[in-house]
Amino acid sequence: MLKAEEFSFYKDLKEEERRLVRDNLREYTFSRGAQVYNGECTGLLYVESGRLRVYTLSETGREITLYRITEGGICLFSASCALHGVNFDVFAVAETQVRLLLIPAEIYKKLSERSIAVSAFTNELMARRFSEVMWVLDEVLNKKFDARLASLLLKEEEYAGTADLKVTHEQLAAHLGTVREAVSRMLKYFESEGLLELSRGTIRISDPEGLKEVAQKE
Amino acid sequence: MLKAEEFSFYKDLKEEERRLVRDNLREYTFSRGAQVYNGECTGLLYVESGRLRVYTLSETGREITLYRITEGGICLFSASCALHGVNFDVFAVAETQVRLLLIPAEIYKKLSERSIAVSAFTNELMARRFSEVMWVLDEVLNKKFDARLASLLLKEEEYAGTADLKVTHEQLAAHLGTVREAVSRMLKYFESEGLLELSRGTIRISDPEGLKEVAQKE
Repeated sequence: MLKAEEFSFYKDLKEEERRLVRDNLREYTFSRGAQVYNGECTGLLYVESGRLRVYTLSETGREITLYRITEGGICLFSASCALHGVNFDVFAVAETQVRLLLIPAEIYKKLSERSIAVSAFTNELMARRFSEVMWVLDEVLNKKFDARLASLLLKEEEYAGTADLKVTHEQLAAHLGTVREAVSRMLKYFESEGLLELSRGTIRISDPEGLKEVAQKE
Repeated sequence: MLKAEEFSFYKDLKEEERRLVRDNLREYTFSRGAQVYNGECTGLLYVESGRLRVYTLSETGREITLYRITEGGICLFSASCALHGVNFDVFAVAETQVRLLLIPAEIYKKLSERSIAVSAFTNELMARRFSEVMWVLDEVLNKKFDARLASLLLKEEEYAGTADLKVTHEQLAAHLGTVREAVSRMLKYFESEGLLELSRGTIRISDPEGLKEVAQKE
C-alpha cells in the first residue's frame, strides 16, 4: 500500500491530484515530548504510529487538552491556514514517539478547492473535532473537579496499559486546565480514600472500581 | 433579489441545483421565546430578521449559550443529520420575533454531495461556529464568574440598545451555565458596588465603565 493511501480521500482523487499528493508527501518522526505544532500552519498530518495530544492555551498560559490523536488519526488544525473561518490556535505535543505523514498546507488547500471528496473529508473531520470539544465543554461545565481528575486517571491507565502511571501532577493539571497544586491536593485526597498510591514519579491506581464511581459523579 | 440568493452558495450552483433550492425553500416565523429547534434535524436556516440564541444542554439540564445568530446569519446544526461526524445536540430559541428561510435537510445533503461550493460553505461556517465555541470554552475555563456576568450584561446592553435590561436572573444563568441563585447573588454584589440598579424585571446599568473593568478581569 502506498503511504499516500493512508489519507482516506486519496482513492477519490483524480490521477493528477494523486500525483500532487505523492510528490509532496513528507515523513517526520518526533520524539516523546516534542512540540509537533505550535500554532504554525504546516499541513494535514496523518499519525502512522504514536499519540499526539492536542490542546489549547488560555491568555493566562493555562493548557487544556482538547483530544488525543492516535494511530490512523488525522490532525486538521495543523492546516488551519488552508481552512477559512478558523479563529483559534491549537497546539500538539507528542506523547510518545510519533511517526507522521504530512500533506503540506498549500497542497491540501489546492485539493480542497478542486475535490469534493477532500472537502467532505474536511467537513467530517471538523465535525468530529467539534464534537470532542463540545464534550470537553460539557465536562468542564458540569463535572466536579474530582470526577474530572478520576476520569482522566482512568483514561491514562487505558492508554498506558498499566495501573502504574508515569505522569506528573503538572501534566495532569495541563490536561484539566488547572494548576499543579489543585491536582496534588486532590490526588492526596484520593490516596487517603484508598483509591491510589502515590510515590515519586508514579501514581498507582489501587482501586479502579472506586475511581470509576468518583468519575461518574456529576 | 430572490430569497434563495440569501444563501451565499446559491450563485455557484448549477441551474438544476438552483431550481432544487427554489422549489423547496420554506419560510417560517417564530415569535419571541419560541423554540426554533430542539435537537431535531430540519435543515439549513437563514435568519432574515431577528435573533436566535443557540445553546447546549448538559446531562443535568443546565443550559449554556454557545453563540447568537442575527440577521443574515445561518444555522448549521439544525441540519446536523446532513453532516457526518456531529455527535452533539444544540438547541435554538428565538430571542426576538424571527423570520427564517429553510432549505430542508435532505435538499442540503444532496447539494453538499454534488457541489463543492456548498461543501466549502459548510466548512467555513462550521469553522466559525467552532471558533465561537472555543471562545466560550476559554471564557469558562479562565474568566472568573464576576467577569463573565459583567461581560454578558454589557453584551445584553449592546443588543438591547438601552441600559435598562429586561432580562431575568434565570435567563442570565442559562447563558452562563449556572443557577439563578449564583446570578442573583452576584448582581446584588454589583449593585452594592454601584454598578447596577436592580428593580422588578429590570437591571439598569448605572456604571458601564466600572462594569467594563470587571469584565476585563482575568
